[in-house]
Amino acid sequence: MMDHSTELVSVPVGIAYTPYDAPSDAPHQGFADDAEAEIQIFDEYADALGGIENTIRITVVYWANLADRTEIVSGDGIGAFARRSPNRPNPLSICACTLLEVDSATLRVRGLDAVDGSKVLDIKPALQTER
Amino acid sequence: MMDHSTELVSVPVGIAYTPYDAPSDAPHQGFADDAEAEIQIFDEYADALGGIENTIRITVVYWANLADRTEIVSGDGIGAFARRSPNRPNPLSICACTLLEVDSATLRVRGLDAVDGSKVLDIKPALQTER
Repeated sequence: MMDHSTELVSVPVGIAYTPYDAPSDAPHQGFADDAEAEIQIFDEYADALGGIENTIRITVVYWANLADRTEIVSGDGIGAFARRSPNRPNPLSICACTLLEVDSATLRVRGLDAVDGSKVLDIKPALQTER
Repeated sequence: MMDHSTELVSVPVGIAYTPYDAPSDAPHQGFADDAEAEIQIFDEYADALGGIENTIRITVVYWANLADRTEIVSGDGIGAFARRSPNRPNPLSICACTLLEVDSATLRVRGLDAVDGSKVLDIKPALQTER
């Protein structure tokens, strides 16, 4: 019998500093707002940024800490997997944004829809299809 | 002092069944291969699929179980955050693919680059920019 109770553990690799203090302040998607934000990568992961300065668009994965993980279906009857709301079983948010500047382990970006202080889990160069 | 040792726990919401038995079999990105795959969502999350049948492109987040989480910089000197390799501190893989059919809690998709048996963490409708 398949065990699907397994827990998969992520570690924060950095923190996002954004103008959005609460989920209601954040745009529904990053590209709906041109505000700038910073991502500070922790020292132990700083080397993982090597070469990122050649990238214009990055895909940021962050943990939407304030999400309601029990909301499987929203009030309008739409399931969590059929909408982009942070409320979902695993509060993994994905946002493609523009990389403006790399200063040591700090990234200055435009278009990140995370709430201030969100834990960043991953950064990838955005695929053409994600930009 | 900031505590960044926090562990963030995800739960599998389903399993991906694909033609790729090993990472070396999988295409570098899903769109490089037209093979079909199935995602079986666990019963307790099946309601989260409500409305997804209206979606053509979905973004799948899955756990790349075989990834090397210690590889911060690859052999060619490029950092984990500047490449799409599954080897990264958090093995969270993102793949936009085409939703062909929804049959109860099973999704038939095209273009999923996951290894067979990968644990699925999330599904979102793909943004125009991710398609």
